[in-house]
Amino acid sequence: MASLDPLPRLTQASTALTRAIQIVDEFGEHRAIAIPAERPLTVFVDKRELVTLMTLGASPELLVLGYLLNQRLIETVQQVESVTVDWEVAAAAVRTRAGIADIAARTARRVVTTGCGQGTVFGDLLAQLGTLQLPDAGVARIRQSTLTALLDVMRQQDSIHRKAGSVHGCALFCGTRLLMFVEDVGRHNAIDTIAGWMAMHGIGGADKLFYTTGRLTSEMVMKAAQMGVPIIVSRNGVTAMGHELATQLGMTLFGRAANRHFLCYTGFERFDSEPEPPRGALRELAG
Amino acid sequence: MASLDPLPRLTQASTALTRAIQIVDEFGEHRAIAIPAERPLTVFVDKRELVTLMTLGASPELLVLGYLLNQRLIETVQQVESVTVDWEVAAAAVRTRAGIADIAARTARRVVTTGCGQGTVFGDLLAQLGTLQLPDAGVARIRQSTLTALLDVMRQQDSIHRKAGSVHGCALFCGTRLLMFVEDVGRHNAIDTIAGWMAMHGIGGADKLFYTTGRLTSEMVMKAAQMGVPIIVSRNGVTAMGHELATQLGMTLFGRAANRHFLCYTGFERFDSEPEPPRGALRELAG
Repeated sequence: MASLDPLPRLTQASTALTRAIQIVDEFGEHRAIAIPAERPLTVFVDKRELVTLMTLGASPELLVLGYLLNQRLIETVQQVESVTVDWEVAAAAVRTRAGIADIAARTARRVVTTGCGQGTVFGDLLAQLGTLQLPDAGVARIRQSTLTALLDVMRQQDSIHRKAGSVHGCALFCGTRLLMFVEDVGRHNAIDTIAGWMAMHGIGGADKLFYTTGRLTSEMVMKAAQMGVPIIVSRNGVTAMGHELATQLGMTLFGRAANRHFLCYTGFERFDSEPEPPRGALRELAG
Repeated sequence: MASLDPLPRLTQASTALTRAIQIVDEFGEHRAIAIPAERPLTVFVDKRELVTLMTLGASPELLVLGYLLNQRLIETVQQVESVTVDWEVAAAAVRTRAGIADIAARTARRVVTTGCGQGTVFGDLLAQLGTLQLPDAGVARIRQSTLTALLDVMRQQDSIHRKAGSVHGCALFCGTRLLMFVEDVGRHNAIDTIAGWMAMHGIGGADKLFYTTGRLTSEMVMKAAQMGVPIIVSRNGVTAMGHELATQLGMTLFGRAANRHFLCYTGFERFDSEPEPPRGALRELAG
């Protein structure tokens, strides 16, 4: 751990997050709509090309840091001296303090996964499964009222998705308090960006919760576990590997979560159920 | 082209496509639901490990063939002698007739893309953009009535998605006739499987149309173009790169397509608009 080193210096590269295009709709009307921007960002580590990420471009420096962390290429952000993003050349230059040991070998393995993009690391992560430690249910738990309250917060959140669709969102919560919300064209970019933000602010995951609009795939579960976040809530569903890994890791997953509805897929011991009135009663209320 | 060679021999490995898990819902009810299966399939080409695909497992042999085709590792399926899938060992053994030239070099480049998984090839494909030829609007076009009719066909389609959610579907249409429908945990697997099916049956793409539940990302556009399919319809939206590439390729994209609604994003010249009654009139009908 190089935690006595200072934090990395980051540029604050900014760029347009949406673009207007002309469409024709079912009424034959030609009109302009906004779509999310999407651009390549080639990451160079100590002048060596590592990978090209396709991103919306909202927080490229945090994305790069989070990518390096979640790919386990660095253990702490303090190992990085600076991240310099230049949209003119679509490049992120990462300068490390002491280099990254056998980076070539550690980025060689390829696994094409269900989730978006960054499955290349998946194989290696599986090997490290045993080393991940999540807080037990005594420390990290969630009440149904907290769950429905944070779903309200998300529903009221202004977003690129509302303006332009076609992006995934990821949010970090402490109880019902929204700490950070990121959107990107790939949901793995979003969670990586949050990883970068947490590391830059020295924020631990044990008492936190992730909200994601994406599916609960094995990669999402794995990344949350790496970041020490024991609970994930998704508007979407779960994949079999995501469910399996979360169960092995002792993580708690909620899916199909919107308004007052949800399914708790696994990790029930962390969940304090406060059941809604039975369906019959709801129907009566609905008239 | 080795097109005088016989078609490859394929196993017909089968496996369960859904799994039952126990959940707790917002009413505090413990009950079983079905989720899609998801399993690794490691592809070996002439005994050399190529990649591990995470898949639902519906048509692994066609998936592997389509993957090799869409990754441009083979030009025709006739270059493959056999594909042997064994779920016991989660492996697909591909035997080629004459090997694949410099396979190592051609699978080295890595790009992490927006779409699911198989973005590793993206960089190379961009280079080949110029070589792709799509039929002009005289040959391949679509009427609004055809579009809405095929959306009806898809709505009535039985699916894993309906049973278990969390999968992407991809369908190949000739006019309103559904030729093939595939679902997988990753939408790129679905389109690759269709590529394998088309190649095994000698079916060209020029007069065909793709329906996908996934976003219209640059990879989806690129793969459809490789397969010679000039029109893609998605229930979902478009990304900026997807839009840009489709425009460059002269492809026609429809998104947000459900029931009678849709947006035509690009390639208007292929689209015969038959406008719906104006919104006002619809409102009156709606009462």
